[in-house]
Amino acid sequence: MKTHLSTVETVLEYEILSPTHFCFNIEAAHWPTQKIRSERLAISSGVAPHSFEDPRSGNRFIRFDAAPGPLLVNYQAEVEVETVEIDPALTETPVGQVPDAVFRYLLPTRYCESDVMGSAAQKMFGQLPPGIGRVRAIEEWVRNEITYKPGSSTSTTTAQEVFVQRAGVCRDFAHLGITFCRALNIPARLVVGYVWFDEPPQDFHAVFEAWVGGRWVLFDPTGMAPVDRLVRIGTGRDAKDVAFSTMFGSVRMTRKEVSVLEHDPRPPKPEPHAQVDHRDAEPAIQTA
Amino acid sequence: MKTHLSTVETVLEYEILSPTHFCFNIEAAHWPTQKIRSERLAISSGVAPHSFEDPRSGNRFIRFDAAPGPLLVNYQAEVEVETVEIDPALTETPVGQVPDAVFRYLLPTRYCESDVMGSAAQKMFGQLPPGIGRVRAIEEWVRNEITYKPGSSTSTTTAQEVFVQRAGVCRDFAHLGITFCRALNIPARLVVGYVWFDEPPQDFHAVFEAWVGGRWVLFDPTGMAPVDRLVRIGTGRDAKDVAFSTMFGSVRMTRKEVSVLEHDPRPPKPEPHAQVDHRDAEPAIQTA
Amino acid sequence: MKTHLSTVETVLEYEILSPTHFCFNIEAAHWPTQKIRSERLAISSGVAPHSFEDPRSGNRFIRFDAAPGPLLVNYQAEVEVETVEIDPALTETPVGQVPDAVFRYLLPTRYCESDVMGSAAQKMFGQLPPGIGRVRAIEEWVRNEITYKPGSSTSTTTAQEVFVQRAGVCRDFAHLGITFCRALNIPARLVVGYVWFDEPPQDFHAVFEAWVGGRWVLFDPTGMAPVDRLVRIGTGRDAKDVAFSTMFGSVRMTRKEVSVLEHDPRPPKPEPHAQVDHRDAEPAIQTA
Amino acid sequence: MKTHLSTVETVLEYEILSPTHFCFNIEAAHWPTQKIRSERLAISSGVAPHSFEDPRSGNRFIRFDAAPGPLLVNYQAEVEVETVEIDPALTETPVGQVPDAVFRYLLPTRYCESDVMGSAAQKMFGQLPPGIGRVRAIEEWVRNEITYKPGSSTSTTTAQEVFVQRAGVCRDFAHLGITFCRALNIPARLVVGYVWFDEPPQDFHAVFEAWVGGRWVLFDPTGMAPVDRLVRIGTGRDAKDVAFSTMFGSVRMTRKEVSVLEHDPRPPKPEPHAQVDHRDAEPAIQTA
Repeated sequence: MKTHLSTVETVLEYEILSPTHFCFNIEAAHWPTQKIRSERLAISSGVAPHSFEDPRSGNRFIRFDAAPGPLLVNYQAEVEVETVEIDPALTETPVGQVPDAVFRYLLPTRYCESDVMGSAAQKMFGQLPPGIGRVRAIEEWVRNEITYKPGSSTSTTTAQEVFVQRAGVCRDFAHLGITFCRALNIPARLVVGYVWFDEPPQDFHAVFEAWVGGRWVLFDPTGMAPVDRLVRIGTGRDAKDVAFSTMFGSVRMTRKEVSVLEHDPRPPKPEPHAQVDHRDAEPAIQTA
Repeated sequence: MKTHLSTVETVLEYEILSPTHFCFNIEAAHWPTQKIRSERLAISSGVAPHSFEDPRSGNRFIRFDAAPGPLLVNYQAEVEVETVEIDPALTETPVGQVPDAVFRYLLPTRYCESDVMGSAAQKMFGQLPPGIGRVRAIEEWVRNEITYKPGSSTSTTTAQEVFVQRAGVCRDFAHLGITFCRALNIPARLVVGYVWFDEPPQDFHAVFEAWVGGRWVLFDPTGMAPVDRLVRIGTGRDAKDVAFSTMFGSVRMTRKEVSVLEHDPRPPKPEPHAQVDHRDAEPAIQTA
Repeated sequence: MKTHLSTVETVLEYEILSPTHFCFNIEAAHWPTQKIRSERLAISSGVAPHSFEDPRSGNRFIRFDAAPGPLLVNYQAEVEVETVEIDPALTETPVGQVPDAVFRYLLPTRYCESDVMGSAAQKMFGQLPPGIGRVRAIEEWVRNEITYKPGSSTSTTTAQEVFVQRAGVCRDFAHLGITFCRALNIPARLVVGYVWFDEPPQDFHAVFEAWVGGRWVLFDPTGMAPVDRLVRIGTGRDAKDVAFSTMFGSVRMTRKEVSVLEHDPRPPKPEPHAQVDHRDAEPAIQTA
Repeated sequence: MKTHLSTVETVLEYEILSPTHFCFNIEAAHWPTQKIRSERLAISSGVAPHSFEDPRSGNRFIRFDAAPGPLLVNYQAEVEVETVEIDPALTETPVGQVPDAVFRYLLPTRYCESDVMGSAAQKMFGQLPPGIGRVRAIEEWVRNEITYKPGSSTSTTTAQEVFVQRAGVCRDFAHLGITFCRALNIPARLVVGYVWFDEPPQDFHAVFEAWVGGRWVLFDPTGMAPVDRLVRIGTGRDAKDVAFSTMFGSVRMTRKEVSVLEHDPRPPKPEPHAQVDHRDAEPAIQTA
């Protein structure tokens, strides 16, 4: 079994303008294929953070109320990720054999309207032989036909809009991939995490997971990062479930720095991608 | 403690045109406030139904594969529902005190785009005193401003569209109520069930639940049925989670009959509602 | 010069429920390439129809107020259509050379959101050599990738929605063709008319016109009818400009019959198209 | 007859990155109620501008091709605007009496989906007595319920979206006003022009015109400017018809300055409006 060690860090600074409730999802998840060797979370004094873990997803959340003024959140961790070999011959699971716990990932969600894109998915990918190859074809289509363009989408952009506009950031790429999969009756979900990008700036990354061969397999339609080294933060039906921050109040972000240091030899450089800027990669949800 | 006894029955008939996987959600839920005295589920011979219960929601699902030909599904139950007294002075819970398990009902979902309707909700209901009275104001606004009109919406219609079109059926009314609540930071979710309508035809009904005073309270923006007598089938983030049937295949529904018999004296007749037709009340999800 | 003679007829019957203003657009247009040999318009007695012709488009409208009760509108005409030979080498016109009067057909309209589909059009057709061949490629793409399916769209369905859903009727096919053209800077517009279908029922038909080689050329993405024999009723930016009827009041249509009789030998049968039903071909606009 | 004299000026600078076709609509319109005393248009040398006037609207367009490099467009004019007294008792025109030439302003357009907002308009304004007072009620509703917020909308934002989001800039305010009017069978259209704002920065302004009392009357839902002094540039069905610039090519705007100098005494200061920024007031259409 091959493993891969990364040191990850997030620094977030905010100027809080009104009493605000925060919910952060930035810690490495408790997940079978990754081992947190050490971690440290620091939050400005004066707040009483409360942690909870979603039993279904393993996502870890930190919630607290904060008064107006500056806020600093800093998370560091050293995480060992097990690199999983992917069999290129994995098959699709007939819907009737999709496990009960996985069944819900067949349904449409806020940003993945698979209920209106069934015909398109059938027309585009319905003739391909079922299996992981078909998901690879979806991944590739998204990579080739959608332009990576920071600022082209917002936190409410949906897969349907990305399909029409042909532009988005990593979460949009993942949402569209998920939507095609679900529309073809392949369970799929969103995964966010830390991963080393070949070109700065570093940021949270969003990819997707599809259920093939009786297991979840990661796909990165942006092609920007080696998914087998991704330090998983969160797993959800779509972006609303795994926002790195959800804020209820009036807040201005003043700093956001994500860094990933790899201890092992650098992975081979992914194919160059023009004008990549990850800053919008994983928008926060903010409710005034 | 007051209870209320209902006998409910569903008869569904289909003409299956291609091998199809079915997932039904028509059984009375296992739920603290209701007791299933007896129940009977009959499905045409030749299929091997598999039941599972979602641990989080108590929703009960029946899944099976079926070959082309006719299909009959018949469910009957006698259910005792505990009638809960609602304190009219229930307060809203500050977001910081919303329990971790309830927090997710603050987020937008496929048919409830609370992320784009925050300003509208604030403009419309933001000045009202927080508490159950505000949710009643939302319930009433939906009842008065949305026209109940079968055929005006489809299985993919969202709250945003209902808000613009001003027409829909019960699930649309519930979705819009949920959306306003979430946009005001009040957790809310969809509930479907059996309930006696004053006027035929009987059908599944959709209402919503909001988190006030530290508990879930039912609201029926259609005003068509006494919610305190609702036999709960399913609880979910929105309609996709509690469709009475989700089908993967080519199928034609040939019969749908829902009946509710009340053992106790008839509740007082709700105010008349012109041109009510519940037939579209709870659309099925069908994927070819 | 080859011409083609058709006898066309429309019978429309309505039950008027409240005082209503009608605007019909069912008469053969005054148009350079067609000659109206004879025509007859009959409307139930009791109304005072007023005719006007839009100077820009040549479209002819009949407007009148009508009281509650039955209404009959009957139009018959014998029209000689000049069959225009289309040079397969027609070139696109650089935007700078598009005539001032044609320039407006480059802009987005209600049902043709070319402003949001620029990238998609470029990705899909941008690499093809400019010219009529590129418009033919668009026509063919729409024919192959969109399913003709009555009931799949409404009078408010837009090209963007058709592109996502992959289903529609003739006006939707035409709208999508127009949208791709405009997004590629090729002026395009909607044309409705009478044309003989190989299979019943007859109905109004909607096709589109693109500006290539310094002239307007007709395209029928449905492939259902020989466009060179189309008796033109109306030309507009999209369907709202050429609805066969626009009604302000409460009205129920009780009969709609369109018939086209061709005097010349039947054109060769177009390729078969499964499950064709033209009844929704050209929805009316109705405002209560 | 009272008149009002303004000196207006526009300075636009671009960095052209690829051969581009431009169409500008920045000159004062030829219009019955305004007299252009003097005007001057200057465009960087090297281009061959061509002017045309739309016979229907009186809008004046300047078109030309330009090669990569810098471009300067400068327009100055001294315009005398006739201040029209508005009778507060103007009545609505029954649809049957709307003139043929005005009839088209009843129909939905790209950014004004009156075809889907009929019920909302009826619910909200249907009970008010018909007449100019009803349009004033619409104007006021938009002013009170929509937040003026630069950056909240884009060049493709529609009235429906503004209605849901409750935020926009002047063109969005005007689009929503137009949409409500049309949905109530009151003809309405967009007007853009130069008008003196009490607070900088100056910019093009968008307002709307409704047909009441047998004439067009101007309304400014933003309340930001005295519409009776507006120097009219363009009149159209919605923003796409009167964009100040429509560009086909790759272009970067580097400067945009609009100034309005009033010769007559300053009109009374309109009520203060927080955080007004007109920079997004009238987005250009750009097609790469």
